[in-house]
Amino acid sequence: MAVNSPLPVSADLKPVAGIELGYAEAGVRKANRKDLLVMKLAPTATVAGVFTLNRFCAAPVQVCKTHLAQVSDAAPIRALVINTGNANAGTGEEGLARANATCVELASLLGFKPEQILPFSTGVILEPLPVDRIKAGLPAAISNLKTDNWFNAAESIMTTDTQPKAASRTLTIGGKQVVMTGISKGAGMIKPNMATMLGYLAFDAKVPQALLNQLVKDAADQSFNCITIDGDTSTNDSFMLIATGAGELEITSADSAEYKELAVAVNALSQNLAHQIIRDGEGATKFIEITVEDGKNVEECRKIAYSIGHSPLVKTAFFASDPNLGRILAAIGYAGVDDLDVSKLNLYLDDVWVAKNGGRNPDYKEEDGQRVMKKSEIVVRVKLARGTAKASVWTCDLSHEYVTINADYRS
Amino acid sequence: MAVNSPLPVSADLKPVAGIELGYAEAGVRKANRKDLLVMKLAPTATVAGVFTLNRFCAAPVQVCKTHLAQVSDAAPIRALVINTGNANAGTGEEGLARANATCVELASLLGFKPEQILPFSTGVILEPLPVDRIKAGLPAAISNLKTDNWFNAAESIMTTDTQPKAASRTLTIGGKQVVMTGISKGAGMIKPNMATMLGYLAFDAKVPQALLNQLVKDAADQSFNCITIDGDTSTNDSFMLIATGAGELEITSADSAEYKELAVAVNALSQNLAHQIIRDGEGATKFIEITVEDGKNVEECRKIAYSIGHSPLVKTAFFASDPNLGRILAAIGYAGVDDLDVSKLNLYLDDVWVAKNGGRNPDYKEEDGQRVMKKSEIVVRVKLARGTAKASVWTCDLSHEYVTINADYRS
Repeated sequence: MAVNSPLPVSADLKPVAGIELGYAEAGVRKANRKDLLVMKLAPTATVAGVFTLNRFCAAPVQVCKTHLAQVSDAAPIRALVINTGNANAGTGEEGLARANATCVELASLLGFKPEQILPFSTGVILEPLPVDRIKAGLPAAISNLKTDNWFNAAESIMTTDTQPKAASRTLTIGGKQVVMTGISKGAGMIKPNMATMLGYLAFDAKVPQALLNQLVKDAADQSFNCITIDGDTSTNDSFMLIATGAGELEITSADSAEYKELAVAVNALSQNLAHQIIRDGEGATKFIEITVEDGKNVEECRKIAYSIGHSPLVKTAFFASDPNLGRILAAIGYAGVDDLDVSKLNLYLDDVWVAKNGGRNPDYKEEDGQRVMKKSEIVVRVKLARGTAKASVWTCDLSHEYVTINADYRS
Repeated sequence: MAVNSPLPVSADLKPVAGIELGYAEAGVRKANRKDLLVMKLAPTATVAGVFTLNRFCAAPVQVCKTHLAQVSDAAPIRALVINTGNANAGTGEEGLARANATCVELASLLGFKPEQILPFSTGVILEPLPVDRIKAGLPAAISNLKTDNWFNAAESIMTTDTQPKAASRTLTIGGKQVVMTGISKGAGMIKPNMATMLGYLAFDAKVPQALLNQLVKDAADQSFNCITIDGDTSTNDSFMLIATGAGELEITSADSAEYKELAVAVNALSQNLAHQIIRDGEGATKFIEITVEDGKNVEECRKIAYSIGHSPLVKTAFFASDPNLGRILAAIGYAGVDDLDVSKLNLYLDDVWVAKNGGRNPDYKEEDGQRVMKKSEIVVRVKLARGTAKASVWTCDLSHEYVTINADYRS
């Protein structure tokens, strides 16, 4: 299921000059599904990424970090390769060897060096990567490389996702056209701590490496780093920003108006992709925005927002459309903001003022809470009366379907 | 449902000299159920407690803290009063007034001062306490006060619990007999951060206030503070230790052998009561002990243990008896131990060595993992190779029944 999430349409996903995509059915875990994706980049492209902070970060994440650290003008990143069905995480030295072997094979097929390849994996943890099947699938993926393959690419990286996630836009910055398309995946093990497994956003402007590094961090912090489905930070989270440099716009300075406009567009599209993940959260029936305002700092606002967003009691109440809103107060109370004065706290559910100065608003009526809880999109707003900081987190409810999916995932 | 938890039997619960218990059906939320409990203490009794650290701590918790701070030899605590059906939390000034009104009424009926009463509530948050129904129910509770009423007392404090939780033992310390009986309740909103709502343990030895304060903290840290069902710290958690002083033993010093023996017994019985809560966790089908060993300090061991114990992905895998054990590694990885070297980490499931030096143990066989996962009691053991510290946390699985219970709780 997915909450009010329109299926992206192939025709709406704009090709980005300088990036070709090709997929294959490699049978990594199951037969007859797209499970291997290759993205080939123009030599002008720059690539930057943010990765999971999980200490068990997957072998391909480690290889990506190494390869990105070695990038030079003479040997830029030229291709990305992504498999589903196996996360290649918790696999030790052998996992690293297999991730590297994938790079060696793809580099040899495309005429690049292995360090010009970035590998990604998603799927089951603690099982050996079937690298031979991946190697065997690469020629098929290469044979259908083309620029207007974004919809197939979005489908190729799905695991428990019920629908592909993608978005596209064109804009004009400083008189130059920019085309921007992104894809993402993920429906469980979603509480990104840098970015979520997996997001890819490409545009055709030219951006120097240092600026792109900044751009990807800022975008992740305002999008993928603000979502949670189950509080489980994945071992494989990766969000990659690709500037192909094959279009009209060239960015040279972070102080330029063009950079700022580009950043706004990148952030908006990243947020769109992140929201698609929540809307397709495992078992999700509701899309919930939690905004905490008037805090001392962003950190405490986010702490409280996540505390609400992770509470199984809050999430099951949303699933049941039950305005059992005291559970939200409890989650605020244990969020770890030790000097929080709850007697000044106000809580709103959409337009309904539920708690006033830490207690039930005398004007609050159960039927008003009920009316909002029945909606499929709900905004929870907490006002702390401690300062001017603010943060938002996006999450979904916890349903029977979530348990079913995660009790059955491997079978 | 409850995991391998034998129902306590009335005859096995030993009366503790110096404490009488009486219950009533006050109709606090629903009719025809025991929902009000009074415990009357001998004038020799000392009482100590630990309470939730939730910032939205309930009105009765605030009143308890105030009354305990005022205790003197001339005016000791003489009674406890507990209602279910309403938590009197998130209720502001009016909630405090109603908790105090309950104390005033009971004090007047028993001939004590209001500050000699400790009030407790459990149930729905953010709704006004129906204090008139509680006042009206008190005479009935007082009329059946007796020492051998522990089983009825355990039943009177149940909410979503499927069975009463109680335990009893007698022991001899320094040639003196000590009788000890405790009750607890709780099945959801369980991740105590001091103690769980609600635990009461009484014994008949005489213990000075300062020593009892220490004893209750130590006992909570080794029992109620090591359990989690859903990671939700309640607004009403309270664990009370009652030394009636009506028995043979008198403790005078924390350095005495008698104090140490008493502490061991109190800790064991507290742990027993805490485990009963997990075994009756909402929707629980499995009882899981998570032990993290060889850590730098207890804090990091507990952090990792809780990270595993809170992961919905780990908990649903246990429910499904699916050895999808990579999810445990992921939870270890995002526990927030930033300098953790996973390449030295080992993971065991009961006697099965699953992960060796951070990767899959080459000798691990899926059928061995499967065999353990099918059991209803499972030990997860993580060895960090960083030091000598150790901590255990007890939890349960996450089932369809959990969602059903929490989607329906108020209706």
